[in-house]
Amino acid sequence: MNRLLDHIEYPSDLKKLSEEQLPQLAQELREFIINIVATKQGHLGASLGVVELTIALHYLFDTPHDQLVWDVGHQAYGHKILTGRREIFHTNRQLNGLSGFPKRSESSYDAFGVGHSSTSISAALGMAIASSLQGDLKKHHIAVIGDASIASGMAFEALNHAGVSDANLLIILNDNAIGIDPSVGALKEYLTKVKKDRSLAKNNIIRALNFDYSGPIDGHNFNSLLKELKRLKNKKGPKFLHIVTTKGKGLTQAEKDQVKYHAPGKFDAKTGELIPKKNIVQPPKYQDVFGKTIVELAEKNSKIVGITPAMLTGSSLKFMMDVFPKRTFDVGIAEQHAVTLAAGFATQGMIPFCNVYSTFLQRSYDQVIHDVAIQDLPVVFCLDRAGLVGEDGATHHGIFDLAYLRAIPNMIVFAPRNEVELRNIMYTAQLGIEHPIAIRYPRGRGVTVDWQQEFQTIEIGTGECLQEGDSTAILSVGTIAKNVTEAIQGSHIAHYDLRFVKPLDEKLLHIIFSKYQNLITIEDGVKTGGFGSAVLEFAATHHYQNSITILGIQDEFTEHGSIHELQKINGIDPDSIREVVQSYQ
Amino acid sequence: MNRLLDHIEYPSDLKKLSEEQLPQLAQELREFIINIVATKQGHLGASLGVVELTIALHYLFDTPHDQLVWDVGHQAYGHKILTGRREIFHTNRQLNGLSGFPKRSESSYDAFGVGHSSTSISAALGMAIASSLQGDLKKHHIAVIGDASIASGMAFEALNHAGVSDANLLIILNDNAIGIDPSVGALKEYLTKVKKDRSLAKNNIIRALNFDYSGPIDGHNFNSLLKELKRLKNKKGPKFLHIVTTKGKGLTQAEKDQVKYHAPGKFDAKTGELIPKKNIVQPPKYQDVFGKTIVELAEKNSKIVGITPAMLTGSSLKFMMDVFPKRTFDVGIAEQHAVTLAAGFATQGMIPFCNVYSTFLQRSYDQVIHDVAIQDLPVVFCLDRAGLVGEDGATHHGIFDLAYLRAIPNMIVFAPRNEVELRNIMYTAQLGIEHPIAIRYPRGRGVTVDWQQEFQTIEIGTGECLQEGDSTAILSVGTIAKNVTEAIQGSHIAHYDLRFVKPLDEKLLHIIFSKYQNLITIEDGVKTGGFGSAVLEFAATHHYQNSITILGIQDEFTEHGSIHELQKINGIDPDSIREVVQSYQ
Repeated sequence: MNRLLDHIEYPSDLKKLSEEQLPQLAQELREFIINIVATKQGHLGASLGVVELTIALHYLFDTPHDQLVWDVGHQAYGHKILTGRREIFHTNRQLNGLSGFPKRSESSYDAFGVGHSSTSISAALGMAIASSLQGDLKKHHIAVIGDASIASGMAFEALNHAGVSDANLLIILNDNAIGIDPSVGALKEYLTKVKKDRSLAKNNIIRALNFDYSGPIDGHNFNSLLKELKRLKNKKGPKFLHIVTTKGKGLTQAEKDQVKYHAPGKFDAKTGELIPKKNIVQPPKYQDVFGKTIVELAEKNSKIVGITPAMLTGSSLKFMMDVFPKRTFDVGIAEQHAVTLAAGFATQGMIPFCNVYSTFLQRSYDQVIHDVAIQDLPVVFCLDRAGLVGEDGATHHGIFDLAYLRAIPNMIVFAPRNEVELRNIMYTAQLGIEHPIAIRYPRGRGVTVDWQQEFQTIEIGTGECLQEGDSTAILSVGTIAKNVTEAIQGSHIAHYDLRFVKPLDEKLLHIIFSKYQNLITIEDGVKTGGFGSAVLEFAATHHYQNSITILGIQDEFTEHGSIHELQKINGIDPDSIREVVQSYQ
Repeated sequence: MNRLLDHIEYPSDLKKLSEEQLPQLAQELREFIINIVATKQGHLGASLGVVELTIALHYLFDTPHDQLVWDVGHQAYGHKILTGRREIFHTNRQLNGLSGFPKRSESSYDAFGVGHSSTSISAALGMAIASSLQGDLKKHHIAVIGDASIASGMAFEALNHAGVSDANLLIILNDNAIGIDPSVGALKEYLTKVKKDRSLAKNNIIRALNFDYSGPIDGHNFNSLLKELKRLKNKKGPKFLHIVTTKGKGLTQAEKDQVKYHAPGKFDAKTGELIPKKNIVQPPKYQDVFGKTIVELAEKNSKIVGITPAMLTGSSLKFMMDVFPKRTFDVGIAEQHAVTLAAGFATQGMIPFCNVYSTFLQRSYDQVIHDVAIQDLPVVFCLDRAGLVGEDGATHHGIFDLAYLRAIPNMIVFAPRNEVELRNIMYTAQLGIEHPIAIRYPRGRGVTVDWQQEFQTIEIGTGECLQEGDSTAILSVGTIAKNVTEAIQGSHIAHYDLRFVKPLDEKLLHIIFSKYQNLITIEDGVKTGGFGSAVLEFAATHHYQNSITILGIQDEFTEHGSIHELQKINGIDPDSIREVVQSYQ
């Protein structure tokens, strides 16, 4: 079979095709993506939705001279395949393979590294103004952003600036009415109206912000897409094209269940059916422990509300949404708002559980300090995806949280060792602890099949001895304890789970420092300023002279790969721990 | 003279007045504010602008049961005076006196603590939904927000959520077309059009976001204000009132020069004339060193651009705006956008100097990590108002930066000891250092009258010996060195200025650790995870057993007061340092 796709290494090859051939190429590109993601896994729906747009942009514009920024980047698989990476696309998201997101160091076609949402307009605007200052008035700068991402505050800030600039910027709103979960909010409702009532398009929000707005047009129709892009190519200044697409386009199941097929895992490329996981009894995902536990607690405590910034399914807060829709809030991609909303709730005696992925809480660092901690409001932060997250890579590892949170006065910082601890700290938090608390736990499955045990209170600031030893002790926080247990099996190394990074269990630490000469701290967070440093600070304050070795994430960005591979790179897998331990024996 | 104001302790007293008496009260309240701020200093213009609104809200609504959130809080002086704090208002911004901002611990009328902008809608929405869940459907929740603050992303996120809620929320847009500097951006231009062309009011952005919009009305006219507020009081759901006011209203000079009279320092209460400072030769403000130096550098290096999120005057980037308006960007209160815009510039080989107050960079922590550091883009962050800021208090101290920035791979973190070092590091940065760098310096005057010396390159990661000693050495970073110099005068204590918190000068540290048994680190940042911890990490890595004492900001929020007072509280004033040093002798 003579595929057009096989002859396209770079956009220069794409430009040799006639416009009439593009639909066939789109069909082939879809199949290519489906075939590889079906076995190699990854993000599916978003890339299928922009196949025509991807082809049209590279067909009409002079990439990489013209600069194309994909917001978030889930949708950039087609872009990667058409820009020199078709043959290695099967290495997507693997160690040393392609990144799942556009990445500057990977290709000159990736104008800007992405991963977190809503950065594209700011970045492309910076590029566009730079081109203008450098005297290149013909260069095009394009940001492609979804309807969930454009509703985030950062995108609004960029629109507000771009609208008063004369930058040569084209913003393409890829409106499919869904992010990972269906989009929410007043802007989304408004866009829905615009799509139904074209008269609204004439005098709309985007025009009010000074943009040359056009659309909405069908993003799967090459005729309208090419025609409009050609027109816009010849217009100067800030432009805004609104296209309507279907997430998962071309795979029936993915169109029907867009949430599940956002990143579906393995599936049958022909039928689209998901390949069921083996039906063995496994420990639960931490996400489900969180989701089921908050429902249990909310049933008894009417003060509890749940908040998520657009991660309803990923965080499993959907369980609470199903049972208590009035007490559960998906605020969209709005981490800043989510945290201060929670603070507002807390002032009224409510107990807000604010579930934010660790990496995304970076977006609301100021709100955690300024709106929650200064006022010492008892907001319960549940930080999902903490530690190394694996295949999503550098942009998504939740490794800074311990360092940046413990610097904040009034904060309690806790990392459960297992599912039972997660349940118990959630239980403890809603009893009323009078301070903000951050509970950080990883993506994926835990270690306890029989996790749904009766609730027990955890005393704030207390650690636990898991194993006594001779002269060396390992101090861990969080689920990395599992690696320690494996590493020290059969040895005389002591193991303590400190649990609280803040406040530290100073009583226990005095015992440990008195009993063991050699201490090793371990965390799945950055070594710089993290839990290990907290232990050093304790030692310095109390003039202990013990030898202390800090294990954790090294001071460089860790790329993508399996969690085990990435732990090995950072020296926190069981083998590496064992080596360190042996050096003391 | 029988003032109405003298009979008003609380809003219950205010409610005894007739509507006809309110203009007289407004006049008296203005005079009261002017008289006290004229001698005690503080923020002036914002509070003068909302005198009528403040009176009208407390007159009509049942505060503190009804909840009133002032955005930023610069404008809340009238609110404080009418809610039990008239007699102590002269203690404003002094140690143990009133806070310059609303503060929950100060009064039940202060529904939410503020300081940073754009939090009010999120907080009030949380309160409003809580009231609804608690079955109180009559309670009112009011957010008063300015036109500069509402253009910030966080406010948009809150509007986007509030618009689809049925919360009993009233947002009042206090539109005076200015923040600290004149407002910027597409939304501001749009609001200006709305004010001129009332037909636009019917179908505007706010209505598009589902709000019951009314206005614009004259915010200094009690008749229209009371009439509209009464009407809105009886409407359920999210409401939005657009009022137009004049910042500085009632003091001619303050109305004329709104930037200068935002916080004018001392002035003549009768004439409004500023009281000139004594004309003695003083060291310059760090702000002016920054502003004048960037102009000098930009004259020779066309790659330099300057970016500020709404602190054009405060940062002195206005100097560059005057000379290079096309290369200088005031993006409004948009810290997130400012940083990623800078990243976009950097991808194109430009050298962006992004000037953000240290406390406000907390708003863009994710962008620093995700858009700048992961891509290792050479953005130059100039962090103004670092360390203790004095009278602005807990919300504004720039004390977390060293801790949260040094946790980020690829970052260079530098704190100049004096004006010359600030100039030289700025000079060095624009030569091309291939990594992001954060330069943090304090508010106010330095120590060097003769600061405009020839530029010299600073080698990245090198500290300096300021004084050799016997067995004890103090390691400082930044301008706190001045206190050390004072404290150790005439002693045999060594003093090293490490300058770089990251990368540490390890070569110098090895010398120091070998030569001195007792080390004291000092920084005007949090002790938890800061510079001192970096030194501890170095010591642990290299198995040094020296005694190390860490001085810095303690692990609780420091309130307002003079910088010297606050340094004393934290044990980093010269006397406290001297005491620590003497314990080693």
